Amino acid sequence: MRGAVIHAPGDVRFEERDDPRIIRPTDAIIRTVATCVCGSDLWAYRGLEPVDEPHPMGHEYVGIVEEVGGEVTSVKPGQFVVGSFATSDNTCPNCLNGWQSSCLHREFMSTCQADYVRIPNAQGTLVATDDHPDGAFVPGLLAVSDVMGTGWYAALAAEVRPGSTAVVVGDGAVGLCGVIAAKELGAERIIAMSRHEPRQKLAREFGATDIVTERGEEGVARVKELTKGIGADSVLECVGTSEAMRQALHAARPGGNVGFVGVPHEVAIDGQELFFSHVGLRGGPAPVRRYLPDLIDRVLSGRIDPGKVFDLTLPLEQVAEGYRAMDERRAIKALLKP
Amino acid sequence: MRGAVIHAPGDVRFEERDDPRIIRPTDAIIRTVATCVCGSDLWAYRGLEPVDEPHPMGHEYVGIVEEVGGEVTSVKPGQFVVGSFATSDNTCPNCLNGWQSSCLHREFMSTCQADYVRIPNAQGTLVATDDHPDGAFVPGLLAVSDVMGTGWYAALAAEVRPGSTAVVVGDGAVGLCGVIAAKELGAERIIAMSRHEPRQKLAREFGATDIVTERGEEGVARVKELTKGIGADSVLECVGTSEAMRQALHAARPGGNVGFVGVPHEVAIDGQELFFSHVGLRGGPAPVRRYLPDLIDRVLSGRIDPGKVFDLTLPLEQVAEGYRAMDERRAIKALLKP
Repeated sequence: MRGAVIHAPGDVRFEERDDPRIIRPTDAIIRTVATCVCGSDLWAYRGLEPVDEPHPMGHEYVGIVEEVGGEVTSVKPGQFVVGSFATSDNTCPNCLNGWQSSCLHREFMSTCQADYVRIPNAQGTLVATDDHPDGAFVPGLLAVSDVMGTGWYAALAAEVRPGSTAVVVGDGAVGLCGVIAAKELGAERIIAMSRHEPRQKLAREFGATDIVTERGEEGVARVKELTKGIGADSVLECVGTSEAMRQALHAARPGGNVGFVGVPHEVAIDGQELFFSHVGLRGGPAPVRRYLPDLIDRVLSGRIDPGKVFDLTLPLEQVAEGYRAMDERRAIKALLKP
Repeated sequence: MRGAVIHAPGDVRFEERDDPRIIRPTDAIIRTVATCVCGSDLWAYRGLEPVDEPHPMGHEYVGIVEEVGGEVTSVKPGQFVVGSFATSDNTCPNCLNGWQSSCLHREFMSTCQADYVRIPNAQGTLVATDDHPDGAFVPGLLAVSDVMGTGWYAALAAEVRPGSTAVVVGDGAVGLCGVIAAKELGAERIIAMSRHEPRQKLAREFGATDIVTERGEEGVARVKELTKGIGADSVLECVGTSEAMRQALHAARPGGNVGFVGVPHEVAIDGQELFFSHVGLRGGPAPVRRYLPDLIDRVLSGRIDPGKVFDLTLPLEQVAEGYRAMDERRAIKALLKP
């Protein structure tokens, strides 16, 4: 089969790779229907994370089950499935608490930009749809496997409630899905921080009521103007930098909450500052598995359409162009079709 | 009148001071019935916070209203009142959200180890009891003005729920009151981390089901043994050091919560570590005013007795001995009677 391999920063190649095969009885093999490039893939692409040796890339996927291991009974060959970027057995104490992305047997997916993918912990990870969905739903279901699930978690971690005010820091695909989530969870006012016109437009389409173009402390001041001078009930931090975290913490009101889902890169939080802010803080890789049945329903019923974050669709063999387009911010998110 | 003045680390004196008087129409003057020494007073006493010039001390109080300013109608001279260490108007947006300790007009109390005290924002700060309480309830009501209110907030910030497991880091008065709070909020298992026999005993009396004497990573390992290997649902961090924060974060399970109420001294939290822990974190000076009516009821009905944290009672003029006894850990908490 063929798949993406990163050799060095800026150097993603589409190459012949070994077909995946069942290694453990808990594995499944899927044929990829759609995969994509994630904002977090860009950390390595931009040289901000080391690339010590060439390795496959990709952790988002929807596909058709090809083969299952002897212990997998929840899905069967031929079914269309959605899974999370973090696999989980769905039976350990953390899974039972709803924190599948901290499953004691968790493996992060990392080989999905390819024709075929091995899914560990398939029994607990994959959710099959009733039928093969119409192609129009594929982008939305693909989004559910990571960015939509992650935006959903950001909104829950930020404790968005009906009638509340939510701020979204970050206008990437996750931030935009965070707007959808805040809207679905009943936020009355949704302030998207973005200075990119096409992303502002999509944010508004997804439910943003206000756009703040200022950044840093200026952006915070603008949010305070919109929120009785005290800040927002909920802030979704969807970037992962020190600046974004500072902006998020300062934009939340005393007693408010920040949900942070961008993997933090060199972010340190001052204990005393957090203390006197009264802000609650929770982050992490989203427990997408917890939300899959619900989010799949919302997509298939047409209630939400997170697939709109894909503003570029390419054949899988052009994966390198997908990275380039996202790196240069020519695309919000690139969908890849084998 | 007379009151405590700190001149330098280790040097607290009982001196003649000016009688407080009404400065603003929102002030009240109370005659102190009881006050005390707080663990946080020891930061200055131990030289861990600067003492730039001599200043009064003390932020915990119950007393009899002597005089009120022209805008104070909620309490009147002769009433017995309890207030918080952080004053609040109880009308600003933060107060209305329940975060009175972030009141836009907040002033922290700092002159309470004295015969008389001026209370700013008296209208929103003071809560009068129906009658003058029996002397036996005075220590409990005094505890409510800070340590019990703070332990309560720690348990709420740590999201203690009926049936859950809570860990309390810190066996000072706040930690011990945190045990009471966890019990009242329905925790089934309460693990107190303490290596001091008298404090262990009081923790058990207050509802602790387990005592862990190990500290640091050994203490964390012990907590994990008691909690299916994953950690506790809720951890109350009642110290304020880097070590205590690390211990608290590591003792919480994925998806669990840490409430931190010790004022952090040189505590930095690593964003990436917090991210992958999935732990929620909230701290701050407790919004004690929010809890006052409820906690006063619980004390006066005999349901809780946080006054037991006072294991030393001294006449106010012996305030210096109160500091010494707490500094040397001969006393958990010293109550002072004018």
